[in-house]
Order: sequence, then C-alpha cells, then structure tokens
Amino acid sequence: MKRFALLAAILLLFTCLFGLPAFADEPVKADAKAAVTETKSDAKATDAKATDASVKETAPEAAATTEAVATDAAAAAETAAPEPPKVDTGDTAFVILSAALVMLMTPGLALFYGGMVRKKNVLSTIMHSFIAIGLVSVLWVLYGYSLAFGPDINGLIGSLSWAGFNSVGADPNPDYAATLPHNVFAMFQLMFAIITVALISGAFAERMKFSAFLLFSALWVSLIYFPLAHWVWGVGGWLRTLGALDFAGGTVVHISSGVSGLVLAIMLGKRRGLGTTPMPPHQLPMTVLGAGLLWFGWFGFNAGSALGANGLAGSAFVTTNTAAAAAAMAWIFAEWIRQGKPTVLGAASGAVAGLVVITPAAGFVTPMSSIIMGVLAGIICYIAVVLKPRLGYDDALDAFGIHGVGGTFGAIATGIFATTSVNSLGADGLLYGGDLLTKQLIATGATYAFAAVGTFIIYQIVNAIFKARVSAEDEETGLDISQHGEEGYPDFVVHGGISSFSFVESSATAKSPAKEMVHGH
Amino acid sequence: MKRFALLAAILLLFTCLFGLPAFADEPVKADAKAAVTETKSDAKATDAKATDASVKETAPEAAATTEAVATDAAAAAETAAPEPPKVDTGDTAFVILSAALVMLMTPGLALFYGGMVRKKNVLSTIMHSFIAIGLVSVLWVLYGYSLAFGPDINGLIGSLSWAGFNSVGADPNPDYAATLPHNVFAMFQLMFAIITVALISGAFAERMKFSAFLLFSALWVSLIYFPLAHWVWGVGGWLRTLGALDFAGGTVVHISSGVSGLVLAIMLGKRRGLGTTPMPPHQLPMTVLGAGLLWFGWFGFNAGSALGANGLAGSAFVTTNTAAAAAAMAWIFAEWIRQGKPTVLGAASGAVAGLVVITPAAGFVTPMSSIIMGVLAGIICYIAVVLKPRLGYDDALDAFGIHGVGGTFGAIATGIFATTSVNSLGADGLLYGGDLLTKQLIATGATYAFAAVGTFIIYQIVNAIFKARVSAEDEETGLDISQHGEEGYPDFVVHGGISSFSFVESSATAKSPAKEMVHGH
Amino acid sequence: MKRFALLAAILLLFTCLFGLPAFADEPVKADAKAAVTETKSDAKATDAKATDASVKETAPEAAATTEAVATDAAAAAETAAPEPPKVDTGDTAFVILSAALVMLMTPGLALFYGGMVRKKNVLSTIMHSFIAIGLVSVLWVLYGYSLAFGPDINGLIGSLSWAGFNSVGADPNPDYAATLPHNVFAMFQLMFAIITVALISGAFAERMKFSAFLLFSALWVSLIYFPLAHWVWGVGGWLRTLGALDFAGGTVVHISSGVSGLVLAIMLGKRRGLGTTPMPPHQLPMTVLGAGLLWFGWFGFNAGSALGANGLAGSAFVTTNTAAAAAAMAWIFAEWIRQGKPTVLGAASGAVAGLVVITPAAGFVTPMSSIIMGVLAGIICYIAVVLKPRLGYDDALDAFGIHGVGGTFGAIATGIFATTSVNSLGADGLLYGGDLLTKQLIATGATYAFAAVGTFIIYQIVNAIFKARVSAEDEETGLDISQHGEEGYPDFVVHGGISSFSFVESSATAKSPAKEMVHGH
Repeated sequence: MKRFALLAAILLLFTCLFGLPAFADEPVKADAKAAVTETKSDAKATDAKATDASVKETAPEAAATTEAVATDAAAAAETAAPEPPKVDTGDTAFVILSAALVMLMTPGLALFYGGMVRKKNVLSTIMHSFIAIGLVSVLWVLYGYSLAFGPDINGLIGSLSWAGFNSVGADPNPDYAATLPHNVFAMFQLMFAIITVALISGAFAERMKFSAFLLFSALWVSLIYFPLAHWVWGVGGWLRTLGALDFAGGTVVHISSGVSGLVLAIMLGKRRGLGTTPMPPHQLPMTVLGAGLLWFGWFGFNAGSALGANGLAGSAFVTTNTAAAAAAMAWIFAEWIRQGKPTVLGAASGAVAGLVVITPAAGFVTPMSSIIMGVLAGIICYIAVVLKPRLGYDDALDAFGIHGVGGTFGAIATGIFATTSVNSLGADGLLYGGDLLTKQLIATGATYAFAAVGTFIIYQIVNAIFKARVSAEDEETGLDISQHGEEGYPDFVVHGGISSFSFVESSATAKSPAKEMVHGH
Repeated sequence: MKRFALLAAILLLFTCLFGLPAFADEPVKADAKAAVTETKSDAKATDAKATDASVKETAPEAAATTEAVATDAAAAAETAAPEPPKVDTGDTAFVILSAALVMLMTPGLALFYGGMVRKKNVLSTIMHSFIAIGLVSVLWVLYGYSLAFGPDINGLIGSLSWAGFNSVGADPNPDYAATLPHNVFAMFQLMFAIITVALISGAFAERMKFSAFLLFSALWVSLIYFPLAHWVWGVGGWLRTLGALDFAGGTVVHISSGVSGLVLAIMLGKRRGLGTTPMPPHQLPMTVLGAGLLWFGWFGFNAGSALGANGLAGSAFVTTNTAAAAAAMAWIFAEWIRQGKPTVLGAASGAVAGLVVITPAAGFVTPMSSIIMGVLAGIICYIAVVLKPRLGYDDALDAFGIHGVGGTFGAIATGIFATTSVNSLGADGLLYGGDLLTKQLIATGATYAFAAVGTFIIYQIVNAIFKARVSAEDEETGLDISQHGEEGYPDFVVHGGISSFSFVESSATAKSPAKEMVHGH
Repeated sequence: MKRFALLAAILLLFTCLFGLPAFADEPVKADAKAAVTETKSDAKATDAKATDASVKETAPEAAATTEAVATDAAAAAETAAPEPPKVDTGDTAFVILSAALVMLMTPGLALFYGGMVRKKNVLSTIMHSFIAIGLVSVLWVLYGYSLAFGPDINGLIGSLSWAGFNSVGADPNPDYAATLPHNVFAMFQLMFAIITVALISGAFAERMKFSAFLLFSALWVSLIYFPLAHWVWGVGGWLRTLGALDFAGGTVVHISSGVSGLVLAIMLGKRRGLGTTPMPPHQLPMTVLGAGLLWFGWFGFNAGSALGANGLAGSAFVTTNTAAAAAAMAWIFAEWIRQGKPTVLGAASGAVAGLVVITPAAGFVTPMSSIIMGVLAGIICYIAVVLKPRLGYDDALDAFGIHGVGGTFGAIATGIFATTSVNSLGADGLLYGGDLLTKQLIATGATYAFAAVGTFIIYQIVNAIFKARVSAEDEETGLDISQHGEEGYPDFVVHGGISSFSFVESSATAKSPAKEMVHGH
C-alpha cells in the first residue's frame, strides 16, 4: 500500500510525458464525409504505390496493401484515371472483426494459464492477462501506436506525432493498409501488443506482486514492445528494411515475450516447494477452453495479418489451422511414446505451440510445409518443456518453452520453408534457393538481445521500487488472497467463515485445525 | 405447477394476439433473384435520401445509412444515373457477424452474473440470460420487430404490418440501412432486445421464481422495450425526432434495464441473510470469462451500430475498447486506494462499466474523450456499488449500479463530449458549443419514467398471478434445486445420494447430519 | 501401450497411402498476383454459369454461387463483356470468419459434452472433441478435401488430384464458390468434417479407449464422412444430382453422426452402473457455456453456408436463431408439463435440437416455418431423450437422440416446409405443392444405411485391434486417470498426495479409506 502512491505517480508521469501532448492537437476526424474529402490523399496513394514497388522484397506486411493497390491500379487503368486509396468494406469488415478475435485471445490466455496454476493463484493469474487489456489499450492510444507505427526516427522508433491517435482516423494510411480506415489498422495492431504483455506472465505466475507486475508491464510494453514493433513492422524500421519476414508476429510477439519471460523467471527464482510439492494444473477444462479461444482468435491474428479478405488471408488460414492441428497430434504422440499416455494438457499445449511456430510463416508457406512445421513444433516444444526441470529455472507455465522456443523455431523455419510461389511479396527460403535464412537469424538474434537486456534492466528498476516477489507467507497463502483479497471458488471449500482456506490447503498449512473444520459445524 | 397452465395460456394468448396475423400474409421473400427485382425499391431509395438529408441532425442512427447512400449518390453522379439501394457484401458481412457477436454477449452475461451468485443459485442465474435468448427471439419474429421498427404510429409505436417478419427480407430497407438486407438489420436489432432483458435479471438474482421471471420478461420486453426502441431508433419515433443521440443503446438498453432492475429489487426485497451472511461470488473465473465475452461481443454492439464496415465503425471500435480499458484501470485504482487491494471482480466490473458508458457515445466522441469517459465510468460506478448497502435495496449483481448509473452518465457525457468532427451526422456537445445536453436529459428522463412506471405495473400483474418471490425455504435451498431440480456441481459435494446439498450448506442448514455425510459411506 | 506402435503405424500408413502423393506436386499458389493471372479461369467461369443454370433445381448448395455468378453476369451485361470469377472481399470476409465460428463450435461441443459426464471423465470427453480438430484437419489437407470435393468419380467419391491442397489456392473455384478464394471454401468445409467426428463421441462417452477412439475417428472420417460429403455436396455427387436439399449439413453432419453414434453405443454396451448409480451432469454451467458457443458458431455454420454475405445468408441467420429459440422454449415447457420443473439442461439441449433441425432447411424456409420447426424439434427430441432408457441402449450424451432424431426430422421437415419463395434455387416442399419430400427420404435413407453399415464394419476392425472398451477397472477409476493420467480438478478433492480420487468416488470405490483421507493430514 505504501508504494501504491509511487506506482500511481509513475503511471501518471507516463501519461503526462507521452500522453498529454495528445490533448493539445485537434483530435481525429472519423468523418462520415470521408468519400468527399478523400481526394487529398491522392498524392499519398501514388507515393505508396511507388514505395511498395521499391520495397517489394523487404516489406512483407505490405503484401495485402500492395495487392489492394494493384487491384485499384488495374481498375483505374480500365477507366484511365488514377484512383485514391479507398476503404474497401470487405477488407474493413475482415480486419475489424479480426481485431475482435485477437482481443478475445487475451481472455483466452487468461483461462489457458489460469487453469494451469494452483487453485489459490487462479485469480491472480487471470488478472495478469485481463488487466493487460486495460493497461496496454490506454497506453496505446496515448503514445504507443505513435511510437510503434508513427513517422520513423532513424529506423529505431516512431515519433510522437500520432500520440492520442492524432491523425489516426477514418482515412486510410496507404503506408500500412490502403483499403482500411487508419483507425482500424491501429486497433488491429493494439491487440498484438496486449497479448504479448499477457504472454510473459506465464513465466512468473504464482509469485510476482501485482503492483510490480503492473509497473513492469507498463515499462516493458513502452520500452521493449513499441520499439521492437517499429523495427519489424513500422515503415522505416531497420528489421523491416533488412528484409526479415515476420508475417504475424513471431519475433515481435513470441520471441520477445518468451525471452523476457525466461529472464524474469530466472531473476524471480523458483516457486516455493517446486520439485517437492506437486503442483498439478488445478482445472484443465479451463485450460482447454482457453486453448480453444486462442485457436479461434489466432485466425484473426494470422489471417487478419493479410490486412484484407483475400487469397493470402485464406492461405494464412490454411497454414495456421493445419500447423496447430499437426502440432497437437505430434505432441500427444510424443508423450504417448515417452510417458505412456497422451494428455489433454499436451494436446492443448501442442496446439498453441503449432500456432506459435506458424505465426511468422503463415502467409509465406504451403499447406504441406505447415504440416511439417506443425509436427516439428509439437516435438520441439514438448522436448523444451520436458527438459525445463533440468535447466534449473522455473518458467511456471512455459512462456519460454512454448513462445520463446516455438517463436525461434518458427522464425528459422520461415527462412527455410518460405516460398514466393505462395506470396510473391515474400521471399524464398533455404528450400527454395533463397538467402532469407540469414536475415531471419539476424532478426531473431536482435530480438533476443534487446528483449533480454531490456527486461533485465526493467526488472532491476521494478524490484528496487516494489520488491518484485511476494513474501514467503503471501506465496504460501496464495496470490488471490494476498494480492487481491479474493478467492476463486469460495463456495467449494470447507470452512467456518467467509475468508477461508480450502480443505486441502488448510490441512497442509495447518493454519486452521482440520479437525475443527470437518466436525465443527 | 398449478399456475403453469396459466403461464402457458398467457404466452399462448400473446402469440395469438400478435403472432397469428403473421401467418396470414405471404412470408418474406429472401429471393436469390434480388438483383433482378431491386428496381422496385428505386423510388423508396430516393425518398430515403431526401429524408436523411432533412433529419441530418436528428437521426444519428441513420449515419451509416446516409453515408452509404451518399457514397451511392457519388457513384451515381459519376455515371449520371440514380442507383437503387444495393446490398454491399462488406457491410453485410460486418453486420451479420456483429449480430453474432452481440448474441454471444448474452451467454457471456450468463457467466458474468452466474459467477457472482452463490453456488446454489448458479444455474437459475445462468438460465435467466440463456432463456431470454429463446423467449425474446420468438417474440421478436412474431411481433417485436414490427412494434419497434415497423411503420410509425404517432411517434409512439410501430404498427403490426411487419409481424412474422412479413416484408422483412433480402431487399434493403433504406430507412434503416441501405446497404444491408433488411433481415440482417432486423436480426442485429434483436440481439439488443435479448440482452436488455437479460441485464435486468442481475437485480433480482437468487430470489425470483422462474415462472414469474418468464412472464415478467415477456411482458416487459413487449410493453417497455419494443416501444422504447421505437421512440429512440424507429423512423418517426419521438426521441429520434427530438434529436437525442444514442449510438448503440445507452438509454434503450442500459438505462431501461438498470432502472427496471432497481424497481424490481426494491419490490422483491432483499435476499434472506444479506448483511449477516457473507455472499461472496462463488466462481470469479467464470465472471471474468463472462466479462471477456461481453467485451468481445461489445465490438459488435457498438462498432456494428455503424451498420457498415467503415471509418465510423473503426472510430466506435476505438472508443469502445479504450473506454473499457480506462474504466477497468480506474476501478481497480479506486479500490486500491479505498480498500487497499485491487480486485479481479473490480477489473471485470470496471470494464463493463466503461463499455456501458461509452455505448451511447461510441460513434460521436474522440479517442481522448473516451479515456476521460472511461476513467470517470470506473470511478462513478465503483462509488455507486460501494454506496449501495447504505441505500437499503438489494440490487444483487448491480444491474442498476452499473447499467443504470453507467447508462445515465453515458447519456449525459454524450451531451458533453460529442463532436461533429468525429461524426458529421452527430451533434456538438457542451464542450463543443452545442445544445445537445438538454436533449440527452430529456431522453434520459423519459426513459427513467417509462421504465420505472412500466416495471412497477408489470410487477404487480406478475406478482398477483405467481407471487414473484420464492418461498423462504426455496430460497434457503437454492433456486437451482427449487426452481429447476438441478445442481451446478453435484460431483463436487460430499453426499450420500444423488440429490444432495453441498458440505457447507448442509452444515449451515443442518438438513442432513454432517456426521453421517462425512462418515456414512 | 503395446498397441500404440500399431496405431502409429496405421496412421502413418494412411498418410503414406493418401498423403504422400501430395508432396509430389507443386504446391498451391496462393499468389498475391491473383488479379493478374485470373484470366485463365475465364473459360471455367463460363462453364460454371452454364452448369449452374442447368442444375438449377438440383443443386441447392450452389445457390449462393449461382447468385454471385448471376450478379457478375448482370454487371458484365452492363459493360457488355464477360467477366471472370473474381474474389469478393465482403463474401470472403464473411466465409473466412464463418469458418472460424464453425471451428469454435468444436471446443464448444467439448464443453457441452464435458459438463454432462461425471467429473472423473471430463477430460477424456473434452479430449474427444479437441483432438478431433487436430486429427481431421491434418487428414483434410492430406487427402480429405480431395476425396470430398475433388473431381468426381462416378458420383461416389472425389479423386485424389487435390491431395495436399494441390490446386486449392487463392483463385476461386466457380464450381463451388465463384467469389471466394478456393482455399477459403476448402477450410470452411473442413470445419464441418471436424465437428461431425466430435459429435459422435457423445454416444460412447465414459467408456471408450482413447487409442480406439483415435483409430475409429480416422477410419470413420475417411471412409464415411468424405464420401458422404461428396455424395451430397460434391459436384457430380449422386445425392446432389438427385436434387435432395441439405443447406448446411442435416444428413452429412447430423444424421451421419447420430446414426453412427447409435451403432457404437449399442456395440460398446452400457456404462457400468447405469440405471443403478446416478450419473448427473457434473458441471452444468460448462454445458450451458458450450451450448452458447455452439449457438454462436452455428451462425457461421448455417448463414455461412450461403457462401456469401447476402440476403440468403440473412435469411438463414433468421431461421437458425428462431428455430433454436423456439426449440429451447418448447423443450422446457415440455419438461415443465411432464416433470414439473423446467431445467437448464433442457434449455441447452432444446437449443441444440432446434439448431440441428433447422440446419438442412436454413436457407429454404420462412421465419414462421422456422418457429414451427423449432417447436417440433424441442418436443420430438425431448421425447426421444425421455424414451431412451426404455430402448435399452446407452447413448450417453444423446448424440443419436438429438443429432440423429433431430437431423432426420429436419431432413423431412425440409421436404415439407421448403419454398422457392425464400430461395429460388431451392425447391418447393409438400406444403407448397412440390415433390421434394421423396428426395429427402431417399437421401435420409441412404445416409442411415451407409453410416450404420460403415460404422459397424469400422467398429469391428477397431475392436479387433484395440478392444474398444476400457477395462472395468479403468472405467471405475475414470477415463481421465486411466487414459490420460490427468484429473480435471485435482485441487478440489480431499487427498493425501498428488494422484488422488475425489472424496465421493473414493468412498464409493473404497480404494482409499475415507477415514484416513479426512483425518490423516
């Protein structure tokens, strides 16, 4: 509580530093008269076409954009007059709804993670994901989108000129998506920032203070994610210019969150009792539901990254679903061979691993390649999770084991399996005679270094302010009670009053005499 | 059971009164040959254009319609020939899928509410929402849509000429949406009616008879919702003509349900034991999942209300997500300050409060305004919920505290923050020098009066027939067993037979000797 | 474990037999340059138009296709030049997202079924659905889609020329959907195959070995589903040519799964203790959530089957929602009359029954007809479920009672209520003077015979290899532990170690002395 004021102050400071300029400008014009005023973006559109042509090989995310522009161009050629970028209702419907699907992934992740922890930590784990939606959404509007996608500064970061969504309105920004309202593109991208922050929380589940989590997340998304997104996706970003391919976020989302999670897991130390006390997932049906929602939302994540309702989106849909399916099958067969039984947790984990691996490759590989990538995803991530105990860190819910390892493999596999026969705006991987793999390795290495060093530094700051880890007593009690004053399932326990410990836990901790609890009605 | 026949009779009567005429007419032509026959709606479209122009300031819901018509007009101007309203596939895809998202909100609400009650009432609470989908959907097709949106009678109600979805087919109705099949518009609107009925149930959870609930809901949606929707959204409705702005249902959905819930809560009285027995939410993970589904579906609710996949929809998407996020953050910080700990229930409640507040304003305000509205939403609704115990009524799940208070604040805030720079078909609020606020206050006042008086009268009727409240014994037992003969989690209890009470409850009620339950296997 | 190698070998064999040819060909070109290369499909499109015209009455599934082609034709007429099939962004957005919705139905089914079994079998039941997504998705890409929709061989099966999604790319296939990328159509259809396999599992819940389930599912989908889908939906399929109507899968999905489930339930025998031990659903909130997700996803299933965002999709949306609603109401009223109380399980089951019944009819009947069909659906399926115990088989979760009976009634009702006033490419049912009913009966009979005989044979194979049913001991222990080594809710039980049995079960099976479990902390 004492440090709460400090946290509030810091968040306020953030807001002031970056956000308040946003109030200065005239806000966005989401004017219904867009059709009338769109001539002013005419020149911009022509530029965009030229730009797209010149960055053909280096700007994979512009694929759909360019396609749309090309179509426009063809149509324009028929009427012998240049046409400005114009909102396409089908593309817009697709991307708005894709954004909604990606948003749903974070509540899905809350359940996926929430089912895997012990009952006494279910709410705190869910909260990590849920409140990430709140925190990141606000920062995104204030300054995040501008830092990530705003006018480039030296290939490293966007300027603050779009802070407060200034000039992010109903007119398309053809640099990113010529057929979508700019605000739709901006919201679609927001959902990626949210889930990246939430993904990290799997690594430090069951032992991090909520105040420390909140400050860490605010700093991490501001200092790591926004710049990294700019590097890879922003016009002028250095990794985009380099020509590394990342269709839907293999480096930006999965490697960055996995690596950061690993660093945090190491710094925070293991959960008390790990290795001696069993910590089975307390509610696997919840985890499977979460995996189902993740799979569903991932269609928006990957197919939506085509930024239009077209054959490329369809192709990404095919590879996404197929890789997830193949990985789920591969994981349970790997378990079956090694442990004798295929598990439901394995099926869910395998599906997520497949989805992670296909993410950077979704719009660049063939359906058959996606099967191979999926099978390898299931096996590799299974091995990573199995090896974890021997490596000595406690990545509680395998944020690194699945997102770090899977994301890394996906980035590399993209450099192997990508083919311009699927997407002429992509590149050819190793199997198709191209030199993409080197670029992929550079992008991966840069992401590892940036995420690891950045997370280390941010952790030091956060730990200095709040002491990041909860006390031993609070950890024993559970984070739900100690951090939030709530219980996940209070009616399911044997108790004598409202604030109670479950039968099992009470017997373990001996805080309340079990005999009294059973007999003392 | 005795009164069951009466309930059936009344529902049948309803059907006969309103529904049977529907069988008389030739049913809707959702003909695939629409393209060929659409010339017949040519004149209508021209009328619509004229109408839209004249009601420019007073018909906010027609914004997207008009925009589309304007675009058509522009296109038509190019080819120098008037063009009839034509289905746009992008807009249609967007609104059909938005309708599906809004439908999902009601199962989401079932979980949101269901997690908050005691375990013994979880099914009855879920049932209130789930069966609302069944009940309202049938009435909507029979006569509801026609009463709400059918040809106007004195600004108060629609006629029955569209009963049975007569003439609600594949051709657009340009009065409402020139680019959508009429049946798509009608189904989108249905989903709003469903959730409004379901929202009320939060106020009387854990104590209302199911038969009384069913009759109340049938009467309420018929006598309150359908007229109110006509007032605000129907062509010719008096509040629409007045010029009050309600983008997606602040008055019609949230104020009306909140106020009606408050009246019911007062009439029914408090739950037994309130204030002496703790009644913590029995399963908060369920509540958070519900909140996640509500947030997801709300994109359909608000962005879908643009009735097209365009920049206005994008703008509504931005403000919706941002307000929800800001409100979730504000609520937990308010709790943190006042109670010392931020809760997961607070984050979920805050998000919903933000979504409620932004609903009437979604298409009229800037992103920065949505942050301010969200922060205020979180704080104001938190205060409302905290003050509740002192006010003496038992609005069990805060239907009034969130939807009534939030809806009221949203309607007023729309009168303050709305700006024509976002939506030229909206109006300027207080901050932008307009006089919208007065109209908003009139609309709010009218909704309060109509909903409160109507609910009071309907309650008297229902109570006279069924005695609305369950007996003390049934309430003690729980509504799941007493109303539905089911239990939410029978395998999780200690019992000797199938029909059992949970360990805790049995010890409290002493219906079965606990000793026997524990030892008597 | 011993037979695991065999299972792997068989699955590998499958892959080799059908899948490996896929590697031989050049993979699919989901090229972004589609606009440039599409002229090559010009001739094909013209053929399609001719074909569609000639099969007008006999090819209901081509309705949307034809409609789109007709629209193209009209547009082309204006410019006096033939136009090749071209991707429509609105239609594509609609069908991609519909595919995502249908995918979500299977996790929804996992919960719907999972909540109905006993706690000790919740994971195995969920797993049946979840892993079906994995298994069927992979087979679909390898050879399933080609067998179902590939170039016709004697009206019975598709050829393998599209194996590995060869030639299933970004260009439309106007035989199926002239305005969609072919890969989008293919993925939409996949989702139907997945859920059909998952639906069957309701019949044999709580007693089938996982290995046997997996092999059965692989064989069943390959030998029953793929051919059946070809018969009804493939160009050249004999039931399609016959002129039977099945808008979204009444025969292919529901009758086939229901009948196959019935056969399996009979062959496997009853669950141990059925009739003497109560087996109430262990978590009805989970079942209602599942029903909600099914209802939501069914909009994609039925409206999406219009294959375009148009008035026909809107019409299917109307009838789908209305029938589900009417059936939910009818079921609970039927219960109320017969049993004295309306149940939540009844509302959920009724909704699903209504959705099943309307599936074959969704695009062919009026809104008022959908109310009648829904009411009858609720009553008929309720009777089927109530009568089940007297018929002596143990269709555990009513796969036959709802999908078999409902699907059959739906197919027949389509023959009664279909009208060309709703869909000119449909046919007139009995009420409208047409002779459709005979065709519907032929299609239904053929599906019954094929599914029943095929399932019987496949069962013999599977049983010979694996012994399909779990041992008595494993069944007593529960399939979660015995098949997967996991528990659904380990933290909710009273136990002394990690691998534990719940309080209730342990007391029943007396494996661990209850006294020790309670006291021996």
